[in-house]
Amino acid sequence: MVRFHEIDRAGIVYFATIFQYCHEAYEDLLAELVGNLEEFFRTKDWGLPLVHAEADYAQPLRLGDRVRIALRPARVGGKSVTYEYTLTDEATGAARATVRLVHACVTVPGFASRPLPDEVRAGLARLGLV
Amino acid sequence: MVRFHEIDRAGIVYFATIFQYCHEAYEDLLAELVGNLEEFFRTKDWGLPLVHAEADYAQPLRLGDRVRIALRPARVGGKSVTYEYTLTDEATGAARATVRLVHACVTVPGFASRPLPDEVRAGLARLGLV
Amino acid sequence: MVRFHEIDRAGIVYFATIFQYCHEAYEDLLAELVGNLEEFFRTKDWGLPLVHAEADYAQPLRLGDRVRIALRPARVGGKSVTYEYTLTDEATGAARATVRLVHACVTVPGFASRPLPDEVRAGLARLGLV
Amino acid sequence: MVRFHEIDRAGIVYFATIFQYCHEAYEDLLAELVGNLEEFFRTKDWGLPLVHAEADYAQPLRLGDRVRIALRPARVGGKSVTYEYTLTDEATGAARATVRLVHACVTVPGFASRPLPDEVRAGLARLGLV
Repeated sequence: MVRFHEIDRAGIVYFATIFQYCHEAYEDLLAELVGNLEEFFRTKDWGLPLVHAEADYAQPLRLGDRVRIALRPARVGGKSVTYEYTLTDEATGAARATVRLVHACVTVPGFASRPLPDEVRAGLARLGLV
Repeated sequence: MVRFHEIDRAGIVYFATIFQYCHEAYEDLLAELVGNLEEFFRTKDWGLPLVHAEADYAQPLRLGDRVRIALRPARVGGKSVTYEYTLTDEATGAARATVRLVHACVTVPGFASRPLPDEVRAGLARLGLV
Repeated sequence: MVRFHEIDRAGIVYFATIFQYCHEAYEDLLAELVGNLEEFFRTKDWGLPLVHAEADYAQPLRLGDRVRIALRPARVGGKSVTYEYTLTDEATGAARATVRLVHACVTVPGFASRPLPDEVRAGLARLGLV
Repeated sequence: MVRFHEIDRAGIVYFATIFQYCHEAYEDLLAELVGNLEEFFRTKDWGLPLVHAEADYAQPLRLGDRVRIALRPARVGGKSVTYEYTLTDEATGAARATVRLVHACVTVPGFASRPLPDEVRAGLARLGLV
């Protein structure tokens, strides 16, 4: 649900907040794949920072609007994974935005490119997403 | 300069915040084009909401990093305008991100497509940007 | 649930975000009192901006923590209303923070002090909160 | 300067953002006291999380407003330090808000209470603030 502080001076949801909505859906998926996220970020030697993000906005979102977010892995590569998000109005089903987020797999803390861990690939398969 | 609250759980600037940095540069340009922004949003019958936003991330930003943002109009169309942003490290000049924001001109409050006002086109010319 | 971008460089929830959590609970209450919030802010000639906000932090919140927020009107005055919030860990019940928000009733758009509307007082009574 | 995304659905700066403004002034002071903040948060075994925050709001802030923030240490205790902030309109000098932030000194990562390090006390004296 769109919140009071997410509205900008033009009276609609600030465009960058749409990316936040999608990333929150991604966080829920990541927790399914790797377990507790606090422990993941404290202990894991790899990570999946964004290397590309893009959004197409169909209709502005307003205070109180409820948005449904559908997430799907669009490409699971050797060293990266791409998720696509479709945002629709929960009440009407009308399109609001589509978003594409490309994550590269890197070492942590070095941020050097490395292969996608098996647990990501296997987890997506287990969830029936690939 | 990257701020304390802009850092995420992975220890780097949250990816969507890069869009905010660019939009702040855009706001400064918009104020050059149309004058006082509070008055603009209170009185004008047109606006320029985002219809597309994309970013390519080259290197993560960390707390205290200073970023230089170069903005240029990449395309001034009949009903839209596209700005490109190049983010570099202020100290080293190293590339951090490139961002492209596409604004469509719409009526306010109706959000129907309409031609770009002359004051935008003329203002960009006056500033030597087109 | 604490989100990835809400964590600051110290690895815990940014202190000001606690106020956001409470205000979101307030927004849900306000919608119970006045109906659709988008319509409320577009049409009403009164509002309830904050004149005071304070928080006491007991324990830091970390990524993935789930917080229960209990809200109660602490004082319903002639021209203002005060809400108190208690934040506890959903899993353990441990105290996380207490927050107090004081709203003054003002005219909109003038922001001059005015009496609290009956619909706020009556709505709080109808919900059994006063 | 107040930014486009900092405005809420009521058309003024979101109340919690005032705390962010003050904390940014605090970050600048902290960098004077301890040097590079990224290195500080990566290496130091102590920290200064908030245990109390409060704000009194005098006048709403609007898009484009420029705010001057005056910071002073109000109390430097054995295990905590309190800063007070006065926010005024840069153009007119009119009061906007006053804020008080109380930081407790804790061990990191344990978050147990500990004495304020000498470098904080000495740094504040060196800057002529105590």
